[in-house]
Amino acid sequence: MSNTMLALWLEDGRVRLRDDVPIPEPGPDEALIRVRLAGVCATDLEMIRGYYPFTGIMGHEFVGEVVRAPADPRWEGRRVVGEINISCGTCRYCRMGLTKHCENRTVLGIWKRDGVFAEYVTLPIANLHPVPDHVPDDAAVFTEPLAAAMEYLERVLVRPSDRVLVVGAGRLGQLIAWVLSFTGADVAAVARHPRQRELLAAYHVPALAENEVEAGAYDVVIEATGNAEGLALARRAVRPQGTIVLKSTYAGQVSFNFSPVVVDEVTLVGSRCGPFPAALRHLAAGRIRPQALIDARYPLREGLAALEHAGQRGVFKVLIDPLA
Amino acid sequence: MSNTMLALWLEDGRVRLRDDVPIPEPGPDEALIRVRLAGVCATDLEMIRGYYPFTGIMGHEFVGEVVRAPADPRWEGRRVVGEINISCGTCRYCRMGLTKHCENRTVLGIWKRDGVFAEYVTLPIANLHPVPDHVPDDAAVFTEPLAAAMEYLERVLVRPSDRVLVVGAGRLGQLIAWVLSFTGADVAAVARHPRQRELLAAYHVPALAENEVEAGAYDVVIEATGNAEGLALARRAVRPQGTIVLKSTYAGQVSFNFSPVVVDEVTLVGSRCGPFPAALRHLAAGRIRPQALIDARYPLREGLAALEHAGQRGVFKVLIDPLA
Repeated sequence: MSNTMLALWLEDGRVRLRDDVPIPEPGPDEALIRVRLAGVCATDLEMIRGYYPFTGIMGHEFVGEVVRAPADPRWEGRRVVGEINISCGTCRYCRMGLTKHCENRTVLGIWKRDGVFAEYVTLPIANLHPVPDHVPDDAAVFTEPLAAAMEYLERVLVRPSDRVLVVGAGRLGQLIAWVLSFTGADVAAVARHPRQRELLAAYHVPALAENEVEAGAYDVVIEATGNAEGLALARRAVRPQGTIVLKSTYAGQVSFNFSPVVVDEVTLVGSRCGPFPAALRHLAAGRIRPQALIDARYPLREGLAALEHAGQRGVFKVLIDPLA
Repeated sequence: MSNTMLALWLEDGRVRLRDDVPIPEPGPDEALIRVRLAGVCATDLEMIRGYYPFTGIMGHEFVGEVVRAPADPRWEGRRVVGEINISCGTCRYCRMGLTKHCENRTVLGIWKRDGVFAEYVTLPIANLHPVPDHVPDDAAVFTEPLAAAMEYLERVLVRPSDRVLVVGAGRLGQLIAWVLSFTGADVAAVARHPRQRELLAAYHVPALAENEVEAGAYDVVIEATGNAEGLALARRAVRPQGTIVLKSTYAGQVSFNFSPVVVDEVTLVGSRCGPFPAALRHLAAGRIRPQALIDARYPLREGLAALEHAGQRGVFKVLIDPLA
């Protein structure tokens, strides 16, 4: 193999396809992974718009195969997915077990660490999870967003008798609504487009128009739009002492009236990266069938077209295939 | 007794002392209560500034004596405090047990119901709690704010090993810090003034200047200032996956950046009215000695001066005495 590889490179808000990026060398506790399939996420698109200052290879959703793992050769040849936060293990948050909040963390394709829109990537072995053989690449590539769609369940009790609303039925909102359907709760999702409604129907999640949302009626509301209107709708929908989960980041400052949150004693819970093993269990059992979200696959050499496609309104998931 | 009484009357943002207000008639499930002592709260001052549209007798913190209770004469002669939310018992929130969030509620001296800056007041018997004999009026009058300083403990677990910060060391911040000191947690409060620091010291709560607050270090932060700077400090102080309790209402819209809340997976909990029985237990045991917060007492006929005094910077609690 040559010493360079193809990669989508972000610099000063511009993405380029480069063929001269050196294949990375794994550190002592790391693995070199050949990327088999990668997914484009809203965060990638926001980064191009300047959401985070980042220079390097983009992308953090992937499934790959370990090529080399000097510290533990048993990993070589295994198909893996990988957690995206690389932690130091020694800071105050790592010592509390909050490794994904490590003060010195790098984040795959997001913060100080090259990502997966490339032929190869390195990650610490500690970040890897083997993919069960019968889970195909085009399902495994959804492990990271599916885990993110489950994180708040680590901290918020969703009761089988609860009434739950998901605001937003795009890429992330679908995964959230599907996972929530398994709680047995009365789950509905706000959806605008016919395809959103069809995808929800496969999991028996009723779709609501915004004006069908009953005010002050929902025990738990998951806000998955990342815009101020979605947050306002969530605020309107939640009952007193209910919980709003914030699943998307918001661009810049949002003007928000906190007094009703105090008066109605509402809880707001921010939520980011979730449990990979649980996501893999859902995929392995076939309970979550994320392939329905795939709109298009592009070879890595057509990665710029993939990013443009992913940014179009109403598009769910676009995949990038370095093997094609 | 005559058929009229003295009362502080709010109308169109102006407070007047009236002597021609009819003594109220208790409804079938209500008690007529002679007010023995009342307290001025920040909410009262905000109402004068137009925070809520309200016309009628102000005031909601009180201790009194039941004069007449047609439905249950055993209450007559008892010294009582009273919960301020009057609920319908039949709406969806009342049926869930969330009576303080009743959709049809009135709120003593705040919303559609005359308050306690008067010689007499009526309340449903269901709202009353007897005051233990050895708890003096000038302690019992703090039951409502002390209960409010305990509400979030119903919903947020404060662990003995937690590091906790109270932002704001005024009227409410003091009660909050004192109550939290009993958890055994490492509690500190942000205090600007020497008297705030002295009051905290009586409960062994260290006082910090704003620049002494360690960023990202607190498991739980209670925001008790009600201003945007306090909220920003709370945000800075809380650790990833930590909890911020919002204990004060905020005037109007606040410009807020939600993205760090999502990335750091912070929980925000709004909190309002709390458990009267627990507050009375603290007062009866002498664990909380709120009299240290009293700056002045005014007879009801000098109630306008009392409100003005309470609005001055650095003043803790001003009481209004209808018996003087």
